[in-house]
Amino acid sequence: MKISIISTSKVAGLLLLLHTAAVAQTDEEIYQKADALLKKMTLQEKVNMIHGSSSFTSGGVPRLGIPEWVMSDGPHGVRVEHGRTYKDSIGVNDAGTYLPTGVCLAATWNPKLGYAFGSVLGSEAAYRGKDVILGPGINIIRSPLNGRNFEYQSEDPYLISQMAVGYIKGVQDQGVAACIKHYAANNIETNRNNINVELSERALREIYLPGFKAAVQQGNVYTLMGSYNKVRGEWATHNNYLINQILKKEWKFKGAVISDWGAVHNTQQALWNGTDVEMGTDLSLGEKPDYRKYFMGDTVLALVKNGKAPEYLIDDKVRRILYVMLKTHVIDKQRSKGAYNTKAHQQTARQIAEEGIVLLKNQGKILPLSSSIKSIAVIGLNANRPQAFGGGSSQVKALYEITALEGLKKLAAKGTKITYAQGYNIKRGAEADENLIKQAANAAAKADVAVIVGGSTHGYDYSKWSDNAYDAEDTDKPDMHMPFGQEELIKAVLKANPKTVVVLLGGGPIEMAQWISSAPAVLQAWYPGMEGGNAIAGILYGKVNPSGRLPMTFPKHLVDAPDHKLGQFPADKDSNSNNVYYFDDLYVGYRYYDTYKIEPQFAFGHGLSYTQFTYGDLKVQKGVNNTTVTFTIANTGKTAGAETAQLYVHQQKSLLPRPEKELKAFEKVFLKPGEKKQIKLMLSADAFQYFNDVTNSWITEPGQFDVMIGSSSKDIKLKGVVNL
Amino acid sequence: MKISIISTSKVAGLLLLLHTAAVAQTDEEIYQKADALLKKMTLQEKVNMIHGSSSFTSGGVPRLGIPEWVMSDGPHGVRVEHGRTYKDSIGVNDAGTYLPTGVCLAATWNPKLGYAFGSVLGSEAAYRGKDVILGPGINIIRSPLNGRNFEYQSEDPYLISQMAVGYIKGVQDQGVAACIKHYAANNIETNRNNINVELSERALREIYLPGFKAAVQQGNVYTLMGSYNKVRGEWATHNNYLINQILKKEWKFKGAVISDWGAVHNTQQALWNGTDVEMGTDLSLGEKPDYRKYFMGDTVLALVKNGKAPEYLIDDKVRRILYVMLKTHVIDKQRSKGAYNTKAHQQTARQIAEEGIVLLKNQGKILPLSSSIKSIAVIGLNANRPQAFGGGSSQVKALYEITALEGLKKLAAKGTKITYAQGYNIKRGAEADENLIKQAANAAAKADVAVIVGGSTHGYDYSKWSDNAYDAEDTDKPDMHMPFGQEELIKAVLKANPKTVVVLLGGGPIEMAQWISSAPAVLQAWYPGMEGGNAIAGILYGKVNPSGRLPMTFPKHLVDAPDHKLGQFPADKDSNSNNVYYFDDLYVGYRYYDTYKIEPQFAFGHGLSYTQFTYGDLKVQKGVNNTTVTFTIANTGKTAGAETAQLYVHQQKSLLPRPEKELKAFEKVFLKPGEKKQIKLMLSADAFQYFNDVTNSWITEPGQFDVMIGSSSKDIKLKGVVNL
Repeated sequence: MKISIISTSKVAGLLLLLHTAAVAQTDEEIYQKADALLKKMTLQEKVNMIHGSSSFTSGGVPRLGIPEWVMSDGPHGVRVEHGRTYKDSIGVNDAGTYLPTGVCLAATWNPKLGYAFGSVLGSEAAYRGKDVILGPGINIIRSPLNGRNFEYQSEDPYLISQMAVGYIKGVQDQGVAACIKHYAANNIETNRNNINVELSERALREIYLPGFKAAVQQGNVYTLMGSYNKVRGEWATHNNYLINQILKKEWKFKGAVISDWGAVHNTQQALWNGTDVEMGTDLSLGEKPDYRKYFMGDTVLALVKNGKAPEYLIDDKVRRILYVMLKTHVIDKQRSKGAYNTKAHQQTARQIAEEGIVLLKNQGKILPLSSSIKSIAVIGLNANRPQAFGGGSSQVKALYEITALEGLKKLAAKGTKITYAQGYNIKRGAEADENLIKQAANAAAKADVAVIVGGSTHGYDYSKWSDNAYDAEDTDKPDMHMPFGQEELIKAVLKANPKTVVVLLGGGPIEMAQWISSAPAVLQAWYPGMEGGNAIAGILYGKVNPSGRLPMTFPKHLVDAPDHKLGQFPADKDSNSNNVYYFDDLYVGYRYYDTYKIEPQFAFGHGLSYTQFTYGDLKVQKGVNNTTVTFTIANTGKTAGAETAQLYVHQQKSLLPRPEKELKAFEKVFLKPGEKKQIKLMLSADAFQYFNDVTNSWITEPGQFDVMIGSSSKDIKLKGVVNL
Repeated sequence: MKISIISTSKVAGLLLLLHTAAVAQTDEEIYQKADALLKKMTLQEKVNMIHGSSSFTSGGVPRLGIPEWVMSDGPHGVRVEHGRTYKDSIGVNDAGTYLPTGVCLAATWNPKLGYAFGSVLGSEAAYRGKDVILGPGINIIRSPLNGRNFEYQSEDPYLISQMAVGYIKGVQDQGVAACIKHYAANNIETNRNNINVELSERALREIYLPGFKAAVQQGNVYTLMGSYNKVRGEWATHNNYLINQILKKEWKFKGAVISDWGAVHNTQQALWNGTDVEMGTDLSLGEKPDYRKYFMGDTVLALVKNGKAPEYLIDDKVRRILYVMLKTHVIDKQRSKGAYNTKAHQQTARQIAEEGIVLLKNQGKILPLSSSIKSIAVIGLNANRPQAFGGGSSQVKALYEITALEGLKKLAAKGTKITYAQGYNIKRGAEADENLIKQAANAAAKADVAVIVGGSTHGYDYSKWSDNAYDAEDTDKPDMHMPFGQEELIKAVLKANPKTVVVLLGGGPIEMAQWISSAPAVLQAWYPGMEGGNAIAGILYGKVNPSGRLPMTFPKHLVDAPDHKLGQFPADKDSNSNNVYYFDDLYVGYRYYDTYKIEPQFAFGHGLSYTQFTYGDLKVQKGVNNTTVTFTIANTGKTAGAETAQLYVHQQKSLLPRPEKELKAFEKVFLKPGEKKQIKLMLSADAFQYFNDVTNSWITEPGQFDVMIGSSSKDIKLKGVVNL
């Protein structure tokens, strides 16, 4: 069995070489240039810069050589072209690299792949003439039902931070600004333009903000997108506390805050509360769109002229925009040209898929498939259906998209008989189709092995399906059940052939209770990008040793999920308000399941390998500034593979209650058969802190802390203690 | 002429002696006791403590010896008794010392009198068995029309801070908790329960918050009252940003946040956002009020029991309440007994009136009245009408109240003929009464001198007038004109006898344009308390040399006022929202008039004396930490008197615009005829800072600063420069 383990650093290095480094400029130089430009600008010219000038540009000042600022969705590929007009977009070479979605990237638990991912995206964005790429999306996966989970990353703020920082640096090293989104507490799509999120300061600080903070302070992200919802009564996109106080004051964000499209509701609030650029569609502007009618257009001009708003507010916004423009060489046009649809880009997409797909179950070592298999029944519409072009702002026109069926066909030994049965229909609310199930069961019965590729749905056939996506913007899933009667399908196929592997596509967990005990193998493949089918086939056939880990808990049933058990999702149904109370508080994801002792279907951090790993020699040493944790991992199996060691901290006794476990470090380690490595993880003071929302500060409370090393949040291998 | 200048330090010293000092306790000891009590309490008992148990008490825990917590209005005298039931209040000895209202205290510009004022109030509150006295009220006087200006202090945050800190220490040194109110941006009474204030962070930090900050950090105030309005979309009484972030986190407030009565609107917001005690009336509770129906009653209990809210939130509130109770000896009952209706208290009330009444104009030295005067016509209903019992929460049943008419009668030389004519009627919207005017003009014509006592109205005769108060809670003035046809009255009287002195009662400015040029003398007497008539008479007769200074600008016309010129007052009439935008921003009071070069009727800090002062020898010396400003003031007249030297700072050039003048120090100096003193004022770094709401921090921007010494904000006597 040949296992391919590609060194991620090689890929990243290659991408770095492609990037023509522009001359570095200090912030001081940048501000001198910005201020010189600002001085020459009229008030009208400044105002032009703080709002959209077309669907995806904000205004420039041609007289001073400042072009329009060109933005583009989306987080896992440069979106199909939206020119100034529809006509502008026709014939544009906009089929590009379609990367796995955010949740698959996070499942790699490999920050180097975050950088590689961002580098591909930034390079393609530069090639397509984009100044700002609207990603990554990093909102906390609070509920299994959020329609946008597939774009996001994790239920854990530490994992998010580690992946997002690399992603941002990857994009920005290509000379393109990243845009971290959606700030903040935007965890529900239902009624997203009206809901008001009420949450504790502690939950805000410990769960919902750390990813954004890391993006700003470690990733130096150049732009940030305000979200649609309200937080504590104020629209997030012009929320004084979130933007002025926390983002710009506490975190010292230097870049520009861009509204989500159409998220500005009020001129004065946007002016005062830190929104720098108002973006939107032309839907509200009539046939000949006049973008000066935006909240941050002519109204601003009038307010300043009438002394109702000080001009320095506008100056600050323009200065921030110019800062980003100058940093990314929008004005002097010294940016690297980028690259498009390269083999290297496609290879990165493939590697992320290979490392992100998670082997959830593998009873009796049914996987990898034996080379002696002569026939495979591939079942399920997801096996034969592209996913790239769907889900709203994250739609990508993929240059190509290898489906699981194609991947299997390519990889199977000559002479292997591969049949395909659709199994179910995709249509919102569609029930089981008994005919299709019968055909599928028959196919399975006749084959050595059946592979069902099902789950949720994201993309749609542009001509046929219109929008049936369950993993999509502006919608949430109705429940956690498998849609389209797939539960009946799986049960029938398993009955026809117990040697059935279930491959699930989707942005997150789906209920498996009806069939999981009889299914020997389950693979969570997310939306694995243009090379996804090759990656799935590679793992099924054992050409790739799976190493993905769940970046979120998979509960058994929806009622087990903390947002449903303790909190509210979507809004409070008992009142007429649009308030959503996050009563679940800190207890998001494994913080809930572990503390409240609720057995999940698959735990956070879970993921199997074709080899085995042994942990040992734990040492926890308190230093002056850091606590050093060392331990060994050995590959005791016969296959090269990667293990992701996860370090969780727990304070044994604290004034305020703390979750049972909190992820504070992890490392993915690649080991040849028989190889043993020592892992060294450093914990700084903040790994032991919590936010005391009574005193409203991060505090280190002295005491005993458990330091746990696990292969998942449930599978703790080593346990030590440190006194602080 | 004999001038009485009482040493304020003597009065304060006397009050201190009356106070039986309880044994000092460290905060650590207090918290140990509080935590010990907390541990013994059931959840139900804790919840009982965080909401009202009657109109003016919150719940206790009898089992543990914790009594109910007894609160009382109001800011310038212990309010008439509101027992648990109406019956409880009958026959209570609740006629007490009625001090001048807040604005008169501020007009003394004498922080020692702030302490003396607080000491009287604290002492009488202790005597009446009150644990918390609901004052001082320190909201910024933003508009001439706010009905509650009379209770507040000033348009300037520095002056407010200086007066409030003394007041609080005075109250709390008597063992009673003060309650700073109303937090925050509560500057409009119209629709006060619904309006939402939108203001810049800079205006919030530079104008609206400093008084509260000083109360917490310098005054160590034990409790604070949240206001009725919303700020940036969230009710102020449960506003996360204002309470959790700024008050408790930034300023480290240790005490308890008490809601204004009925200001809590939502249980979860109150729980999470820092409200510690919900107070209210029984109006919403039906005939047999069950206070557990409050937002912070049974609902809290259920939420905690069902895991929808963590108990530590309740613990923190109870801990804060216990902290204040223990600090003020509510539980061990070691508090000083206090004193009631003492001569010393009445003497303090008189001194504050004498130092707070402002001589606005004195042409041809018509004042002080010559001893040769044989007849005085006293004109105007305010001359003969008590004011104590009015205005809502600030109503006081005065033991007695000397009116101006009584005061003049007492002080006039034997044989002086004093006549009285009512002049006008008091009734909301009442027009001029030609008959009364004719009578008044006749009386004036027949007298050597006429004294009109008019202006606005605050108190009302409990049996006759019901509520006609223009200076009162829950209402704003309709305009700045003199009500009840007084302008016609004054013009007629001035015509009948040009030797007419106008004495104005009221919480703030009133338009004088129609008669000011022909009136030789004008006295602003505010609501000068139970001894007010004696103080007015003393000043008119020259027994007291006036030394009060305006704590607010008196504009010529309402349209000149910044809230009307730049901002909105009351709410935005153009929209259906309840939003009020403070477009006037920093430009409140003299910061506006001086920067925008609008000539006021009388400037901030203005006030005349019967003697003259000369300024000289200015030295501005930059030190390591402080800038020292020295100068001399000499009394060059023939009468002892007090001058209030005001130090204003102006940065000559700054990145963000700054007001023309900002008060940063002042000193009231008492000088005998011919006496000369050197004044030394120290300016620390923060005197030169401003809040940069782009970087969201207080900054010292290097540059040249003007240091101006003035007798008012318009009358600058000396000018120096310092480079920082």
